[in-house]
Amino acid sequence: MSKYDVIVLGSGPGGYVTAIRASQLGLKTAVVEKESLGGVCLNWGCIPTKALLKSAQVFEYLNHAEDYGLKATGVDKDFTAVVKRSRSVAEGMSKGVQFLMKKNKIDVINGFGKIKPGKKIDVDGKEYSADHIIIATGARSRELPNLKQDGETVIGYRKAMTLKEQPKSMIVVGSGAIGVEFASFYNSMGTEVTIVEYMPHVVPVEDEDVSKQFERSLKKAGVKVMTGSSVEKVEKTKSGVKATVKTKKGEETLEADIVLSAVGIKTNIENIGLEDVGIVTDKDKIIVNDWYQTNMPGYYAIGDVTPGPALAHVASAEGITCVEKIAGMHAEKIDYSNIPGCTYASPEIASVGMTEKQAKEAGYELKVGKFPFSASGKASASGAKDGFVKVIFDAKYGEWLGCHMIGAGVTDMIAEAVLGRKLETTGHEVLKTIHPHPTMSEAVMEAVADAYDEVIHL
Amino acid sequence: MSKYDVIVLGSGPGGYVTAIRASQLGLKTAVVEKESLGGVCLNWGCIPTKALLKSAQVFEYLNHAEDYGLKATGVDKDFTAVVKRSRSVAEGMSKGVQFLMKKNKIDVINGFGKIKPGKKIDVDGKEYSADHIIIATGARSRELPNLKQDGETVIGYRKAMTLKEQPKSMIVVGSGAIGVEFASFYNSMGTEVTIVEYMPHVVPVEDEDVSKQFERSLKKAGVKVMTGSSVEKVEKTKSGVKATVKTKKGEETLEADIVLSAVGIKTNIENIGLEDVGIVTDKDKIIVNDWYQTNMPGYYAIGDVTPGPALAHVASAEGITCVEKIAGMHAEKIDYSNIPGCTYASPEIASVGMTEKQAKEAGYELKVGKFPFSASGKASASGAKDGFVKVIFDAKYGEWLGCHMIGAGVTDMIAEAVLGRKLETTGHEVLKTIHPHPTMSEAVMEAVADAYDEVIHL
Repeated sequence: MSKYDVIVLGSGPGGYVTAIRASQLGLKTAVVEKESLGGVCLNWGCIPTKALLKSAQVFEYLNHAEDYGLKATGVDKDFTAVVKRSRSVAEGMSKGVQFLMKKNKIDVINGFGKIKPGKKIDVDGKEYSADHIIIATGARSRELPNLKQDGETVIGYRKAMTLKEQPKSMIVVGSGAIGVEFASFYNSMGTEVTIVEYMPHVVPVEDEDVSKQFERSLKKAGVKVMTGSSVEKVEKTKSGVKATVKTKKGEETLEADIVLSAVGIKTNIENIGLEDVGIVTDKDKIIVNDWYQTNMPGYYAIGDVTPGPALAHVASAEGITCVEKIAGMHAEKIDYSNIPGCTYASPEIASVGMTEKQAKEAGYELKVGKFPFSASGKASASGAKDGFVKVIFDAKYGEWLGCHMIGAGVTDMIAEAVLGRKLETTGHEVLKTIHPHPTMSEAVMEAVADAYDEVIHL
Repeated sequence: MSKYDVIVLGSGPGGYVTAIRASQLGLKTAVVEKESLGGVCLNWGCIPTKALLKSAQVFEYLNHAEDYGLKATGVDKDFTAVVKRSRSVAEGMSKGVQFLMKKNKIDVINGFGKIKPGKKIDVDGKEYSADHIIIATGARSRELPNLKQDGETVIGYRKAMTLKEQPKSMIVVGSGAIGVEFASFYNSMGTEVTIVEYMPHVVPVEDEDVSKQFERSLKKAGVKVMTGSSVEKVEKTKSGVKATVKTKKGEETLEADIVLSAVGIKTNIENIGLEDVGIVTDKDKIIVNDWYQTNMPGYYAIGDVTPGPALAHVASAEGITCVEKIAGMHAEKIDYSNIPGCTYASPEIASVGMTEKQAKEAGYELKVGKFPFSASGKASASGAKDGFVKVIFDAKYGEWLGCHMIGAGVTDMIAEAVLGRKLETTGHEVLKTIHPHPTMSEAVMEAVADAYDEVIHL
């Protein structure tokens, strides 16, 4: 029986990053994976969707060439080629992880792993043991009882990124990041898209101003948006599906080629041996402490299977923290109030910290500032005037409570706010940080200036 | 004679921002402008060039549609339309400044202003007085004796952005930001471009690794690069120009339609009355103290006419600092070691702080980290794998000495480094700031990790 210091169950952005860090710290490490290295994020999530969305963006440019003084005739997409490109990007990344495993001398054990008492793990009949077993099995698309995924007419994200043919029409149920990214992609590609969202606003976890702006952008782009609505029933028809949607005004019937269910995730905690070992779960999540230790010594869990935001960068950070603690380093607890979230639709959305509503409900007195890209020189030059940056400060002590962005490239701009908040910046310090001109990032400085009534370009 | 609290001479990004901030602070303000509001930056610099470069970027996408699974047959550019778009963006911005002047109740005095003793200013024969006169007359393209601009065969940036016809071939003299932005634009548009640079590397103010990477990118894109070379002589020919270039290997003759001289700037300090008032200048710059006061009480100078980097964002910040001090605020001195610089060529370049060479020369022991975008998932998905982020830390105290980026979108990513440095972050803090996945900004975190031997994806 092979013996390791650390065995990681699952090789997603939680698992493989954990394994690399463990190995860096001198721990003999193995990772167990039943499918492709890199997990959902790399193979079926973050990465391939970004590749699809890049094709969509370029397609938009092709269709609007004239806006830039250019010409393009015979503009068309080759849907198969678009999907193929996305798959090849994902495959390249998965090979990259393979290389990283080898380089870091991490054993990759292929197969379905099941933890056992005594800090052992069974992989398809073969047993391994480790001083520390880290569960990082992630999550999958959640299924609603009235929206069973048959992989044909009702599909999940995985199928949605490998369809053989482009559907002419699509109903997207759920308007979280996954839902709207696909809505955005298919709409750009020419599919007629309807979003059905149960909550009163699309991208419901975002600040309400962002949700409203995003809904306007979706509608402008031709997406039909139904909020405060739910799909009650889906029936197969000859040509596709018929969905019964309950709206505020009564029932409505929608017809489409296909339904994409994007109503959240379900953790992969079944049949991995949690019960045998006696690991406590609650509400579909494995319960862990600040260092990702479960109730059973030697067993840890990180990423989507634990409470907290189900995001790749959170899983990676949790894994690093977990093994740094195991290795006896002076590890730093993750501050869950400072985790950025990104949506790569058109326009992009990025945010960190509290929404205005949350901050008000928490009892803060606020200084709120907002700067629209319509007033930004760089945005004008780039033809990307939609969106804004919104900042929320505590009026009393100047704490940067939240930052919310919508517009071109904002997913790369949010890092400034995350770092600033980590370093406990004040608004004044952001204001006196010279942002280069002309950039979209000036909008952060200007939004802060707006909060303190010093905005220049409004 | 009209009397003001503040009169600003020049309405560029230094002048108009100064005026707005002055007015916000309750000062009765006027601005004197001989041409269009917004100055060179807005009308003939930062903004219109970014518009041109956006068209170039879109044109690149059109020409590489297949890489994204897309098709376009009749791809072409309409050079006149590209220039027209750029002019219309600039005009829109200038109108925006006009609106801001009105909104902030700032008097705009059109004409050529000349300062006079007794805190007066003469504008085409009419006299105005103010308690505080702020000189913000900026700069123009520098002319070399052997490279006189005739506006036909040898041109400056201003002409370069309004050419009636696209030249078939162009020699760009100088590879600073302005030179390479035009080189990049014209090369993308199909002009045959040769860059002649006197220094051993292109973009010579950047970190050497960035210069080398950029030179590779230029060459890959088809630009001919001659470093360590200088244009000795330019002769008009029937069809264009013949330039004699002195290279390390001897003299070479280049022929082209046109020569763009981009060899730096010359300040606008002639005929504006400096001598009459007795204001001290040195090496073509007005000498000022930390609060932008000249040697003559009541006279100030900001922006390109003063020592320090000739950048729009510096001029704006100087103007704001200047009037905040005038208004009796607790103003903050500008930290000139923390000013970002951006070049919007393809790929983009952004940097702040010391280069590795400068840091070594300053006697620091260094921790240097570098993360290439070729290892970034987002970069792969976006088809933008060229470039890297390089970070330089002081090994002893962990100070972030410099950050150098080259690649897609880096001009919006540098703000994180500028804010981090302002807040005196350590590498460890950047490393433990959770950057969203998948983004280009992760490269900052990974570069820092590389400096501390904790990089995951290399």
